[in-house]
Amino acid sequence: MNRVALLTIGDELLEGRTVDRNAATLARAFTDAGGVVIATESVGDDVTRIADSVRRLAAAASTVVLTGGLGPTPDDLTRAALAAAADCALVSDAAMEAAIEVLTRGHAPARNRLQAQRPAHARWLDNPVGSAPGLALEIGAATVYALPGVPREVAAMLPSVLDEWQARTSARPRARRTLSVIGVREADLVDRLGPLLARGVTPEVSVTVHSGVITVTVRGTGADERAAAIRAALGDDCFADDDTTLAGTVVLALRVRRATVAVAESLTGGMLASLFVDVAGASDVFAGGIVAYHDAFKTSLLDVPASILAQHTAVSEAAVRAMASGARQRFGADFALATSGAAGPEPDGPAAPGTGWIACAGPDGASTRALNMPGDRALVRRRFALAALDLLRRQLLADTP
Amino acid sequence: MNRVALLTIGDELLEGRTVDRNAATLARAFTDAGGVVIATESVGDDVTRIADSVRRLAAAASTVVLTGGLGPTPDDLTRAALAAAADCALVSDAAMEAAIEVLTRGHAPARNRLQAQRPAHARWLDNPVGSAPGLALEIGAATVYALPGVPREVAAMLPSVLDEWQARTSARPRARRTLSVIGVREADLVDRLGPLLARGVTPEVSVTVHSGVITVTVRGTGADERAAAIRAALGDDCFADDDTTLAGTVVLALRVRRATVAVAESLTGGMLASLFVDVAGASDVFAGGIVAYHDAFKTSLLDVPASILAQHTAVSEAAVRAMASGARQRFGADFALATSGAAGPEPDGPAAPGTGWIACAGPDGASTRALNMPGDRALVRRRFALAALDLLRRQLLADTP
Repeated sequence: MNRVALLTIGDELLEGRTVDRNAATLARAFTDAGGVVIATESVGDDVTRIADSVRRLAAAASTVVLTGGLGPTPDDLTRAALAAAADCALVSDAAMEAAIEVLTRGHAPARNRLQAQRPAHARWLDNPVGSAPGLALEIGAATVYALPGVPREVAAMLPSVLDEWQARTSARPRARRTLSVIGVREADLVDRLGPLLARGVTPEVSVTVHSGVITVTVRGTGADERAAAIRAALGDDCFADDDTTLAGTVVLALRVRRATVAVAESLTGGMLASLFVDVAGASDVFAGGIVAYHDAFKTSLLDVPASILAQHTAVSEAAVRAMASGARQRFGADFALATSGAAGPEPDGPAAPGTGWIACAGPDGASTRALNMPGDRALVRRRFALAALDLLRRQLLADTP
Repeated sequence: MNRVALLTIGDELLEGRTVDRNAATLARAFTDAGGVVIATESVGDDVTRIADSVRRLAAAASTVVLTGGLGPTPDDLTRAALAAAADCALVSDAAMEAAIEVLTRGHAPARNRLQAQRPAHARWLDNPVGSAPGLALEIGAATVYALPGVPREVAAMLPSVLDEWQARTSARPRARRTLSVIGVREADLVDRLGPLLARGVTPEVSVTVHSGVITVTVRGTGADERAAAIRAALGDDCFADDDTTLAGTVVLALRVRRATVAVAESLTGGMLASLFVDVAGASDVFAGGIVAYHDAFKTSLLDVPASILAQHTAVSEAAVRAMASGARQRFGADFALATSGAAGPEPDGPAAPGTGWIACAGPDGASTRALNMPGDRALVRRRFALAALDLLRRQLLADTP
C-alpha cells in the first residue's frame, strides 16, 4: 500500500490565522497519483512536536510529506526537527549557502546561513520559485519530503516530488473523473442516481457540495464508464466532466457559437462579470457589464423604464428583464444576463434576504427565474451569479440545432 | 493548561476534494477563548482510525473537538467510533429519533434512526440549523465535543460549546488585536517594526501575508498597547485594527465624508465593484460600475477618447485616467476608480502579464499608479483591485482637513 501521511507546520494553522490549503493540494495530488492518504496533521513551530509527529507518521506511512518551517526566521524549525527525528546532526552546507547568497543578492547573510542548514542525512530538493530549498530524507522505512509553506512554492515543487515518488513506489495514477452538477438538490441527485452511487466498491463515487454546485467524484478502475453513466442519468444538469468551472463551460459554449455576452448586475454587483473574466481568454466572448446598484442608473445606463421601477420595484421580473435587454443593446451582445434581489442581511424594500430575480436575454427573447437562496450575503450573491450563468448555459443548450 | 486538539473527519479531506475550513474556524475560536490548540488532525471515514485518533488526542489534550461523520448516511461513522473510543455501547435514543422525525417531516426513517444513535455515555448538543445533533462525552480525563461537518452548522453550534468549555476550564479569553497593512513588503515591515515584533514574549506578535495584505496579530496581555505602538509605527500603511476589510475601511471613510464612488474596470473585470458590494450597506456610498473589457466600450460607455486608445493603448496612464474620469461623470460620483492591465497568462499587446495602471479620480483631479504584480491571473486581478481600493483610501486620508 502506498500510504502517504501529510504534516503541515506553523503556529498560524493552530491559531486559525490561515486556512490550510496545502493539505488539500497535496492530498489531491497524491490521491490522483495512486497514493492512499491516511491522515493529515498540523502542528505548531515547536521542534519536539514536529519531531514527534514526523516519527509517528513515518511509522504509519511509507511516505511523509510536510510543509512549512523552512524559511529564514528563528521560528522556522523544521530543519532542526527533522535532524532530531532522524537522529542525526544539523550541518551547514557551504554550497547551498553560496547558492542562496546568489539568489538573495547577499542580503541578510545570517538568514541565508539558517536556510543552508540541513540534517546530515538529508538531500536538497530544488525550489524553482523561492529561496527556501526543500529537503528529503529517510526516517525508518519511510521517505520524508519537506517543502516550504508558501502554496505557490508547494505547487512549483510538487511535480518533481511526485515523479520521484512514483518511480520509487511504482504507484500507478488512479483514474479520476469529476462531474459538476448545478440546479439539483443533493437529496434529489442521490435519488436519481440510485445504484450508480454504490459505496464500498470500485470505482468509488463520492459527492460534495459547495455554493449549490455538486461535485461527483469517481475514482479507480472503471471511472470513465461509471462517469459516463452518471452523466447520462443527469442529462443537462451536469455541466462539466473535467474540472471546468461553470463560467468556463459557458465561455466555451459561447465561443463555439461565436456569440457574445454582457451583464447587468444589481445584487451580484460585479461578481458575475468577474466570474467571466476569471476565465483566461474570456475577452473574445465577454463584452462587458454594468453594475447598476441604484435605480437611477438602471434607467440612465441600462434604459430600464422608470415606470417599471415605480410600478414593480427594482426586484421584480419586469425590472430584471428590462436590465438584461438594456445590457444586450448597450453592448451589442448576442446574450445578456441580469440579476436583482436582496443579498441581506437587511431586506431590500419588500424583498426578503436571499430572494430576487435573474434574467437571460437573447436573440429569441428573454427567460427569467425567481430565486430564493439560503446563506449569508456573500453566499447569496455567489448563488445568484452561478444561477445566472446556468440560465445562459441552459439557454445555449436549448438553442443548439 | 487548556490544551485543545482538533480532529476533522471525512474522506473528502484526505482526497483533497474539500479544503478544511472547520479546523481554522475552531482553532481561531478556541485560541481567542484562551485555549492552546496543540494539534489538528484529519482522518477518513473509518471507525478504527477515528477511534485511534480520538483516544490519542484525548490523552494529549483536555479537550478534543471534532467535526464530521454525524450525518445520516452509512459512511457517517463518528457515532460508532466515539462509542469504541469510550468503550461503551452505541444506543438508540427514542426521544432524539422522535425529534429528528419532526424536523425531517418523517422522510427517510432509516436515516433518522441512524442519526438518533449515540454512545451510551454521550449527551446531545443542540444543532439549531441542521438535523444532525452534536455529541459530548468524556474519554479519560478529556471532554470530547463532536459537531457536524457543515461549516454553517459548526458556526451555529460553536458559541454554546465555547460557553460550556469556558465554564468548565475557567479559561479566560485572550486579548487579540489584528492589524491589517497594505502597500508594504513583508521584509520592509519587519525592518520598520524591529523590536516591536520580538518573539517568545507576551504579547505574541505574528505576521501573515495574503494577496499583498499583511496581517499582524498581537495576542495576550498588553496586546492593546503593543498594537497601538505598531499602528503608530506603520502610520497610514495600516488600514484597520479590528478585522475590517480594506473595502469596509474605504466604505466607512466614504460614509463619514458623505461621498460616493464609482468604478471603471478592465483587468479587474467586476472584482473591484464586487469588493464594494461585499460590504453590507455599501449602497449608500457605492454608485455602480462599468466593466469595459473591450476598447469600443471604453469609448462608448466611459467616454475615453478614441485618440487616447489609439495613441497610448488601453493599458496606459492616459487611458486609465480617462476611464476613471468617465465613470465619475457617468455616475455623478465624488470619486471613481479605474483599472487596466494584463491579467495573464498572455500579454495584452505590449503589456506583460501582471503589469498595468490604476487611477483614482476625485474632486481635485486624478492620481495614478503603475503596477507590476506577481502571481497567476486570479491573484493579479485581486492585487490590482486591492491596490485600487488603497489608492482611494490614501486619497481620502490626504483630503481629511
